[in-house]
Amino acid sequence: MKLHGYYRSSTSYRLRIALELKGLDYEYVPVNLLTSEQKGEAFTSRNPFGSVPLLEAGGRDRVQSMAQLEWLDEAHPDKPLLPADLEDRYTARELAYAIATELHAPLNLPVLKYLTNEYGKSQDEIGEWYRHWLARTLDPLEARLAQLGTGDFLFERPGFFEVCLLPQVYNARRFGFDFSDKPHTTRIEQACQALPEFQRAHPDNQPDNPERS
Amino acid sequence: MKLHGYYRSSTSYRLRIALELKGLDYEYVPVNLLTSEQKGEAFTSRNPFGSVPLLEAGGRDRVQSMAQLEWLDEAHPDKPLLPADLEDRYTARELAYAIATELHAPLNLPVLKYLTNEYGKSQDEIGEWYRHWLARTLDPLEARLAQLGTGDFLFERPGFFEVCLLPQVYNARRFGFDFSDKPHTTRIEQACQALPEFQRAHPDNQPDNPERS
Repeated sequence: MKLHGYYRSSTSYRLRIALELKGLDYEYVPVNLLTSEQKGEAFTSRNPFGSVPLLEAGGRDRVQSMAQLEWLDEAHPDKPLLPADLEDRYTARELAYAIATELHAPLNLPVLKYLTNEYGKSQDEIGEWYRHWLARTLDPLEARLAQLGTGDFLFERPGFFEVCLLPQVYNARRFGFDFSDKPHTTRIEQACQALPEFQRAHPDNQPDNPERS
Repeated sequence: MKLHGYYRSSTSYRLRIALELKGLDYEYVPVNLLTSEQKGEAFTSRNPFGSVPLLEAGGRDRVQSMAQLEWLDEAHPDKPLLPADLEDRYTARELAYAIATELHAPLNLPVLKYLTNEYGKSQDEIGEWYRHWLARTLDPLEARLAQLGTGDFLFERPGFFEVCLLPQVYNARRFGFDFSDKPHTTRIEQACQALPEFQRAHPDNQPDNPERS
């Protein structure tokens, strides 16, 4: 398998965690979003959406992160990301899709670029926008985790939900989001970060991170 | 089952189509988004995200449309929304999640309200924003449909993808989006609209549509 991604792209980060948790070998191919490599013909001929991650697996280019995650679990059922129980599967997906559908898009790079270039918004205003949408999903997410009586992970082992949560929390911290009223979210964050699978998947440890030691 | 929704909410519309395609009986409970009923305590105590649709089913309140769709197919395997073949399942999800994750959020009512209230954007500017993000996903979606050699539906029968596509196309038409260069998308739209399941699910035919004849 080859994962074409960018170290700081939250959707690429999801896939790296998932592949690590499932113990699947993959080659990481950096795509430079800063030079718009993903909009060049060489890339868009393989992925018309012009976005990362692109997962080259099972003889095919796969280009939507949530569909990639669902496929990984169906094609490689060992070490499942989703639990076996029907209700637990619903719960994991509810929280994961809250992040993927409500939160991801308004915070994605193209939207931030639009606000800067078309609306002339400053870095401070972008920060406010970012934190506004973060709160709108991370506040109720924390409430849901409290209702569920979550421990270190949503279920026994980290999976589908944590794969989506950690990259979003990483981004939120970059934008100075205040997590002081979110004990459940931060407990899960810390428990995940202690695991080697999450450490290997972290943006700090990717070859295309220019600050990598 | 009870579906708490709003006639013009695209995610509520997804669920109505899915329930109709699966032949599942449900009671429709209107939630008035114009009076912010979804932000009131009576609603948020059941759904902390304060959003529709809320699906009351299997003894539980379910609150994320994509997780609801995945659950419906697992809990009620008759008349599946997703095809049986692993690769076809990936394809259906790739296109459905492109709509649900990239397209839905920047076009969702809260974002449009933010642009109006915080940034003072006019109705014309909102229209431009809307069509910009539509094109960004609907253009490559059309290219993907062309690559796949799609007929009247993505596969033999409408399912997971069409459930997500039709509400988005309905919204796009409200905002005057130009579909003249999208023969595949519009062929699927027309084939779906000819079916009674899609007609019953249409916003025009919901009890909370004030213009309903």
